[in-house]
Amino acid sequence: MDGYSPFIFNDNDEFRVIDQRFLPKLCEVKLNNIDDTCQAIKNMVVRGAPLIGIVAAFGYYLAIKNATSIEELHLLSEHAYSCLIAQRPTAVNLKWAIDSQKRVIEENAFLPVEKIIKKVRANAFGIYENQKQCDEQIARHATCLFDKRLRILTHCNTGSFATGGIGTALGIIKYAAKMDLVDEVYVDETRPYLQGSRITAFELSNERIEYKIVTDNTCGILMMKNMIDCVIVGADRIAKNGDVANKVGTYCLALMAKAHNVKFYVAAPESTIDRILDDLNSIEIEVRDSNEVLNFNGVDIAPKGARAMYFAFDITPNKLIDAIITEKGIMLPPFEL
Amino acid sequence: MDGYSPFIFNDNDEFRVIDQRFLPKLCEVKLNNIDDTCQAIKNMVVRGAPLIGIVAAFGYYLAIKNATSIEELHLLSEHAYSCLIAQRPTAVNLKWAIDSQKRVIEENAFLPVEKIIKKVRANAFGIYENQKQCDEQIARHATCLFDKRLRILTHCNTGSFATGGIGTALGIIKYAAKMDLVDEVYVDETRPYLQGSRITAFELSNERIEYKIVTDNTCGILMMKNMIDCVIVGADRIAKNGDVANKVGTYCLALMAKAHNVKFYVAAPESTIDRILDDLNSIEIEVRDSNEVLNFNGVDIAPKGARAMYFAFDITPNKLIDAIITEKGIMLPPFEL
Repeated sequence: MDGYSPFIFNDNDEFRVIDQRFLPKLCEVKLNNIDDTCQAIKNMVVRGAPLIGIVAAFGYYLAIKNATSIEELHLLSEHAYSCLIAQRPTAVNLKWAIDSQKRVIEENAFLPVEKIIKKVRANAFGIYENQKQCDEQIARHATCLFDKRLRILTHCNTGSFATGGIGTALGIIKYAAKMDLVDEVYVDETRPYLQGSRITAFELSNERIEYKIVTDNTCGILMMKNMIDCVIVGADRIAKNGDVANKVGTYCLALMAKAHNVKFYVAAPESTIDRILDDLNSIEIEVRDSNEVLNFNGVDIAPKGARAMYFAFDITPNKLIDAIITEKGIMLPPFEL
Repeated sequence: MDGYSPFIFNDNDEFRVIDQRFLPKLCEVKLNNIDDTCQAIKNMVVRGAPLIGIVAAFGYYLAIKNATSIEELHLLSEHAYSCLIAQRPTAVNLKWAIDSQKRVIEENAFLPVEKIIKKVRANAFGIYENQKQCDEQIARHATCLFDKRLRILTHCNTGSFATGGIGTALGIIKYAAKMDLVDEVYVDETRPYLQGSRITAFELSNERIEYKIVTDNTCGILMMKNMIDCVIVGADRIAKNGDVANKVGTYCLALMAKAHNVKFYVAAPESTIDRILDDLNSIEIEVRDSNEVLNFNGVDIAPKGARAMYFAFDITPNKLIDAIITEKGIMLPPFEL
């Protein structure tokens, strides 16, 4: 992989992640156990739906690796599962990854405990490798959508720091840029966490792809001035009908795009599709600590006592989406996933 | 006026303004001459279309007050005009205010110089007083739009720190809140300058009106969850057909509002209407220094060498606007201003 990896898990089971709250400054954090892993996910030390899944899978392994009996293994596994699932409610990849780990334990219950533990470890690496391959395939499929050099707006961070691979939406941009299919990249800063200006910009700088950062409220004037050909975003959860839950602000972009005849594409691995849900009408939208809006880098940006409301995600209805790109290919509306 | 005044101009012609870049922290800056005034407007020490006009009018007076002959007066006046007009291109109130000062000089050219200077000083106070009265009238007219206690979203700062009076859009909210016509106030933080979280929140706190700050990209999920009844914003320039130039992000709010059947109101003094322009298709949109996006309180929030594009305003087409409220009353579409 070009650039920086968002985490390292070495042969000695040392698990270190880059604390994404401080990017573009590089700060590493060591995750020693399941509690560390849960805190890292909850506090957005790591973020990005696929990466949360991968980190959770490795955390799951750390949680169960010292089990000495099948009973203990099951207890530790249940504990890990219930701790991890509670950390971020909106993205489905977290659940998908820990379901996968739990299944490895259940399906191999007849094996000696140490062999099961090895399989859980291997499965974490498998989930990681699988994501990297997904990213590549998504990027390759998406080139069909480039009939010329495109001027692209993207939101949040959907690159290496979101997936461990080249990324989903940002992976497409990187891949297309190498093929000289990208004319301009506009990066939404993505308040309040600034995934765009801090992380996406960092990745694009590392890849030497030119870009311009814009505040999230700039999409209107950019589209009105005919400066954007398409919007490409990732997803935290996709329903069977194609409704997409993604970083707050995505829905605005989609509606603006529709009004301006700008294409709106969603890129995500199949694991993001929640095949239990027909639509996203009743999904839980995570409400995060309002201090993340009121405080920046330790500096108050609002009066003392101010209150904020911080929805971390929003829902983009399927009718606003022109294509969903997964590792399997490009899906066009009407979506039946 | 309740709360804080954005400036003081005393009997000794001492002109001090609150540096709005540091609000909610209160820092005063003394403006000694026309250069100080121009810098204050350019660097957004003061901002808000009507307030820029008022500050420019006082700065104009400072520029000409020491003239000893009519020739010198005209020279100083021309210099003041050309310096001030160049500072912010989008808002029309700046031009309106300095045109008014220039006219005072021209129309009284037969008087002794010291008398003309006195009239220019009085005219600056007149513009200020007039704005305060406009604000009150706007707020009174707008109560007709409250058929129940409303849940209101507002953008940028359109209060005392934008007008010197109670404000335009925010003046409506303050006035309606006193009449118990306000159910909720959502304050867009308004990146990159954070007029919402720093200034509007400060004013609402001072008035003891409850509010919640939201990031600019939250409007979609708020409207989708049916949490907003109406959006009320100010304006920097309004064309005869009702097109509105206002703080970047306004257009997104208007389009989202239309899609969700949420009312979208614009409040501004008549001086904001540019009766030379049929529409705003060819208006200059101010592009500001990208460092204002890339840097926060002296801290870089993007990688070194990152570029940004910072449009300070956008255009909201008249068809998205449900009413324009001025001191003369409530205007409904189709607008013929």
